[in-house]
Amino acid sequence: MTAKFGKVALLGIGLIGSSMAHAIRRAGAAEHIAGYSHRAETLEVARGLGFADSLSTNPVECVKDADLVVLATPVGAFGELAEKIAPHLKKGAILSDVGSVKGAVIRDVGPFVPDGVHFIPAHPIAGTEQSGPSAGFAELFDGRWCILTPVPATSDAAVEKLKAFWQALGSQVEVMDARRHDLVLAITSHVPHLIAYNIVGTADDLETVTEGEVIKFSAGGFRDFTRIAASDPTMWRDVFLNNKEAVLEILGRFSEDLFHLQRAIRWSDGDTLFDLFTRTRAIRRSIIDAGQDTPAPNFGRGEKKDK
Amino acid sequence: MTAKFGKVALLGIGLIGSSMAHAIRRAGAAEHIAGYSHRAETLEVARGLGFADSLSTNPVECVKDADLVVLATPVGAFGELAEKIAPHLKKGAILSDVGSVKGAVIRDVGPFVPDGVHFIPAHPIAGTEQSGPSAGFAELFDGRWCILTPVPATSDAAVEKLKAFWQALGSQVEVMDARRHDLVLAITSHVPHLIAYNIVGTADDLETVTEGEVIKFSAGGFRDFTRIAASDPTMWRDVFLNNKEAVLEILGRFSEDLFHLQRAIRWSDGDTLFDLFTRTRAIRRSIIDAGQDTPAPNFGRGEKKDK
Ligand SMILES: NC(=O)c1ccc[n+]([C@@H]2O[C@H](COP(=O)([O-])OP(=O)(O)OC[C@H]3O[C@@H](n4cnc5c(N)ncnc54)[C@H](OP(=O)(O)O)[C@@H]3O)[C@@H](O)[C@H]2O)c1
Ligand SMILES: NC(=O)c1ccc[n+]([C@@H]2O[C@H](COP(=O)([O-])OP(=O)(O)OC[C@H]3O[C@@H](n4cnc5c(N)ncnc54)[C@H](OP(=O)(O)O)[C@@H]3O)[C@@H](O)[C@H]2O)c1
Repeated sequence: MTAKFGKVALLGIGLIGSSMAHAIRRAGAAEHIAGYSHRAETLEVARGLGFADSLSTNPVECVKDADLVVLATPVGAFGELAEKIAPHLKKGAILSDVGSVKGAVIRDVGPFVPDGVHFIPAHPIAGTEQSGPSAGFAELFDGRWCILTPVPATSDAAVEKLKAFWQALGSQVEVMDARRHDLVLAITSHVPHLIAYNIVGTADDLETVTEGEVIKFSAGGFRDFTRIAASDPTMWRDVFLNNKEAVLEILGRFSEDLFHLQRAIRWSDGDTLFDLFTRTRAIRRSIIDAGQDTPAPNFGRGEKKDK
Repeated sequence: MTAKFGKVALLGIGLIGSSMAHAIRRAGAAEHIAGYSHRAETLEVARGLGFADSLSTNPVECVKDADLVVLATPVGAFGELAEKIAPHLKKGAILSDVGSVKGAVIRDVGPFVPDGVHFIPAHPIAGTEQSGPSAGFAELFDGRWCILTPVPATSDAAVEKLKAFWQALGSQVEVMDARRHDLVLAITSHVPHLIAYNIVGTADDLETVTEGEVIKFSAGGFRDFTRIAASDPTMWRDVFLNNKEAVLEILGRFSEDLFHLQRAIRWSDGDTLFDLFTRTRAIRRSIIDAGQDTPAPNFGRGEKKDK
């Protein structure tokens, strides 16, 4: 199975779209990379960076003759985009996306997919807190997972083709159904982002502690949350609006567990605290063993010079 | 004001104690560094690393003739240690600590401080998720803040001396009262750690998502929380047991705010989400401007090669 496509159309060339372009170039996984963005300024920046062979503010123009079309805007824009491009998709093409939620994408995009086009939703589990076309880099997907959530009727050959493509971009690939994806990501990504945004908001609202104090003494742990809470607002608004059910379910569990800890603190139950704090270390070790993070101490932010 | 002491006794030579030893050496801020640890194995490791001039499992031996004594064990051990060493402290010496809470330290240690000894609680706002004597490094305190919380009766000269010492170790120094310290740190450090431990615990307990899935797909944000939740269990148990009031107050605010977000998600109120997610970015920028974090994108964990 060759990972190579003729023309790949990236609808959205922010962090993820531009990183895909860089990784496609590195892998030689396409003959032509076409990029679309809705603002001319973004195209200007992309042109300067040179990661695409053609650029347009017209999505229809962008998808013309494309063998692979990837939706890479915030998910809230997928439905409208899909409606616009659907009549212009090439027969036999694969239509995919990189959205952080999958059930809603199938709901919004699925109805527009014409006969003879293979619709395979995808989500690369990789990112940074930065956004826009200059934030992208070829190595973003290396060693990370990409989840495909094809509906049952999807052609196996098309799934295999997209799988080989993401592997060529550096990813490992997993296939699961959209519902499961949305639940797993609610705990490994969506709720963590929500509580990071929330604690930063709480700090900002406190009348008893000044913003200057929060900033000065942020190295005690808070700054790590601000990093996550610096992620793109539009993207994350769309994620929460489109994965309500799973996010609310996990949030309920989180709050229940937090009340349990709060009670342990109130009643000086040190054992409950100690047991949890010990258990969480094992998960950290497994993540490092699985190659999904580095063991280098990071709170010190790499200032260590002698090791 | 010279930053230099004759003998400095470090009671506890884990991450913070050993980092102090390295930083003292680098600055030439002491003629003799004495280290104490309660387990012989820890001393063995420290001996191999060579950051102390003398090492002992006897705290009384360690503080003999010391001009500066620093408590650097988990805060739950401070009271007992203080009681043991108090009668053996040199007249005119400074007794300090590095504990992450300050009101409880004044409560537990204060009553044992003999006349003629200057007791000045301190807290360097710097750390990593690792612990033990091999985790230490000289640069840990560079550019970070150290908070001193002397009680009103404390000699100004002694405070100035300790201030100069921490500056020599690379820190900026701020003086505030213990109550304020405990409130500020509850929001910038203690509650962030608690919610990180909590979300990792919630993930571990879910019956609907496997541990394997959580680990594989942790790069979506979760892995950053596991880093924080890998911090030392004993240290953090002691922090929460000893800063109850402020932690419970901030936790109450955090939960209230989280319910507000939860409701916004349930009722598809995208504007509330978008507004918060935008506001939090400004705080991130201020932290970077204040030199308390680097702007380099970190979710990608430095895999970016071309920039
Ligand atoms: N960031 C992550 O960590 C991450 C990880 C995995 C998946 N994802 C998913 O990847 C997708 C893109 O995220 P990103 O981080 O690459 O975002 P980004 O850097 O903000 O880029 C978004 C792109 O979409 C375009 N766009 C925004 N709103 C649009 C609209 N209403 N109509 C048409 N185009 C629009 C932007 O164009 P202009 O610049 O011209 O406005 C830009 O090209 C999202 O669906 C997100 O869920 C993100
Ligand atoms: N880690 C941080 O991010 C950070 C930041 C600022 C302040 N602090 C504060 O610094 C202090 C030390 O933290 P750390 O990170 O350096 O911890 P650490 O690396 O775990 O080291 C703790 C040290 O205390 C000793 N110790 C532990 N329990 C003891 C007991 N019951 N009696 C006597 N000695 C005992 C240990 O000896 P053995 O190895 O022999 O058991 C070790 O030398 C804590 O009070 C903490 O609140 C920590």
